[in-house]
Amino acid sequence: MAKLTEYKDMAPRAKAVVEEIAGNRGIDPAAINNVWKALAHHPQVMEQFAGEMKAAFAPGKLDSLTKELIYLAVSVTNQCDYCIASHGAAARKKGMTEQQYSELLAIVGLANETNRLVTALGVEVDAAFR
Amino acid sequence: MAKLTEYKDMAPRAKAVVEEIAGNRGIDPAAINNVWKALAHHPQVMEQFAGEMKAAFAPGKLDSLTKELIYLAVSVTNQCDYCIASHGAAARKKGMTEQQYSELLAIVGLANETNRLVTALGVEVDAAFR
Amino acid sequence: MAKLTEYKDMAPRAKAVVEEIAGNRGIDPAAINNVWKALAHHPQVMEQFAGEMKAAFAPGKLDSLTKELIYLAVSVTNQCDYCIASHGAAARKKGMTEQQYSELLAIVGLANETNRLVTALGVEVDAAFR
Amino acid sequence: MAKLTEYKDMAPRAKAVVEEIAGNRGIDPAAINNVWKALAHHPQVMEQFAGEMKAAFAPGKLDSLTKELIYLAVSVTNQCDYCIASHGAAARKKGMTEQQYSELLAIVGLANETNRLVTALGVEVDAAFR
Amino acid sequence: MAKLTEYKDMAPRAKAVVEEIAGNRGIDPAAINNVWKALAHHPQVMEQFAGEMKAAFAPGKLDSLTKELIYLAVSVTNQCDYCIASHGAAARKKGMTEQQYSELLAIVGLANETNRLVTALGVEVDAAFR
Amino acid sequence: MAKLTEYKDMAPRAKAVVEEIAGNRGIDPAAINNVWKALAHHPQVMEQFAGEMKAAFAPGKLDSLTKELIYLAVSVTNQCDYCIASHGAAARKKGMTEQQYSELLAIVGLANETNRLVTALGVEVDAAFR
Repeated sequence: MAKLTEYKDMAPRAKAVVEEIAGNRGIDPAAINNVWKALAHHPQVMEQFAGEMKAAFAPGKLDSLTKELIYLAVSVTNQCDYCIASHGAAARKKGMTEQQYSELLAIVGLANETNRLVTALGVEVDAAFR
Repeated sequence: MAKLTEYKDMAPRAKAVVEEIAGNRGIDPAAINNVWKALAHHPQVMEQFAGEMKAAFAPGKLDSLTKELIYLAVSVTNQCDYCIASHGAAARKKGMTEQQYSELLAIVGLANETNRLVTALGVEVDAAFR
Repeated sequence: MAKLTEYKDMAPRAKAVVEEIAGNRGIDPAAINNVWKALAHHPQVMEQFAGEMKAAFAPGKLDSLTKELIYLAVSVTNQCDYCIASHGAAARKKGMTEQQYSELLAIVGLANETNRLVTALGVEVDAAFR
Repeated sequence: MAKLTEYKDMAPRAKAVVEEIAGNRGIDPAAINNVWKALAHHPQVMEQFAGEMKAAFAPGKLDSLTKELIYLAVSVTNQCDYCIASHGAAARKKGMTEQQYSELLAIVGLANETNRLVTALGVEVDAAFR
Repeated sequence: MAKLTEYKDMAPRAKAVVEEIAGNRGIDPAAINNVWKALAHHPQVMEQFAGEMKAAFAPGKLDSLTKELIYLAVSVTNQCDYCIASHGAAARKKGMTEQQYSELLAIVGLANETNRLVTALGVEVDAAFR
Repeated sequence: MAKLTEYKDMAPRAKAVVEEIAGNRGIDPAAINNVWKALAHHPQVMEQFAGEMKAAFAPGKLDSLTKELIYLAVSVTNQCDYCIASHGAAARKKGMTEQQYSELLAIVGLANETNRLVTALGVEVDAAFR
């Protein structure tokens, strides 16, 4: 398990990243989630990751819940326990119901199954799909 | 590459699956896409796959485009060329714009990256997420 | 695509690996399959790979067809086109029927689906399974 | 970790799924394994999953132990801890010996290795395999 | 296959990304590789991807060839044909010999194998490694 | 979790493998790491795995730390907790600094992201890369 560095013990460069994230979420920096505490000794990675997350979740043409569902679908496919827990919580906060989660699981399960069937059979892409 | 069996040459059990799918899509059975032509000699698998697809895409609490985006996110993560082509086409038909596809790619790329970071660090799940 | 080096053009160390494999299969070394022609400039990798294959497929307590089915199930899961083609052919040569392949696809599809469901839910291992 | 709902506390639709599975296995529904307790609030997913499992493991042309070995090979490849534990236990119950498990591990390890070698080299599929 | 947009036909925002990359590599923007031509209609993704690549490959404490080898090892593990071809070429340009590539393949193959063995056995992390 | 068999309780064939590894590392066989204790009942797999590890890490044209970084990059991509812990410790022992680990994480994250982007777009390999 990663060593977790609390906000108060972080170097200034790490603190700055946490403060910006906490500010955007309207929470106390001390209440930041573990992934940032685990990254505290990798400030470059923190900045990179925070920048990408901000860009990817910036307001656009897909609403914020849809983006969380897509994130969650990838995390379930890759079987990342922490990511499923944290983005599952984020999705619920943004309104995902148990019924919607059931439907997401059904699609994610189906796609993981059919991705293999299709590859096993070596199906050529239809001219209509190109 | 898979041998493709055209609709007219399929056995009755395979024809029945194709007819139902074609009926639901309002297309000619002869115009069914290649995956079903490749599966023609596996009627049990066809029935199973068709049933699961119908169940997973049945009207529910996630709209049909969102389900396609989730399917596409999994297929990109698993790197299934045919699935990306076929469900990319399906998503476009249901209204996905290039801008929305850009945003999906950004989230899928981010999640594939951060899933690894988080695992590399062995981050413990926050009490708040359980 | 890999450059393929024909048997007659290989260096002695590569030739020796090909000759042993061809001898075991009762075929002409010139008729060796492409993977070995693609590996010709990596003799260490060839020797390593040939040795592992021989060890893994040596007579034991799982019969030869069962081993091919297991190999094929992994290759479908990893979506390796060449491996599916070559070990699919090997399995058919050892007696795999279309019906058996249907059943293999059903299990491989199911496991790829349920592996994600179970991880998504964070199911704790039952005491009885430990 | 998932919240587990015991059989006695499940809604009727979930209870029905558990009863059928328990009946087929000749066990008390209260002794059902954790995956079903974790799925209790997703009755549609339970029904879908139970139906697919029944279909995939129905008597056919591959014996029941071979199907478990295939399932296990996929689960090891995908690194699903729960699935390895539960289907490893199921395989042992159906007769898998330690020696057979050694041989399965050897094949699964080999295939995971060679799947990458072959893709790294971009090997073209032999005409003979098509 | 992706539609490729040549440099001269790109919109200004896409052109700007290509010009910066071409400038850093000392090549003509018209000779940019296909991935950027395929991304031309996703300028946000181009900017994001170019920024991350620049950051990850910036001079640091791992030399440039080592970074390419790491990139290549991931791409082989994920079985991404284009990435293997493009970063294989980049690694060769930075000095990777055939012998070094053999050794990389041996390690990548081994790790893909042993990652599964270790997970299959459910090995607990040694106190010494924490 | 795997049952761990201590060195003193192993059968002679397993003891021999452990003794050779311990000898090479200059440690007491009783201090061997858990993976070998977990494999104790699979002597064939132990011998195979030990042989491959020795071959892959034999002195060559990539230095020993570079090989560990490649191994670690694969293990992070596959999300193998034990492998990350054990080879992370090995890499640190061979001199990997926190800064170098940051840079490895950045490359591994980037490659996992771009592998998907490139596949999603179906980018054709440039003639120059063949």
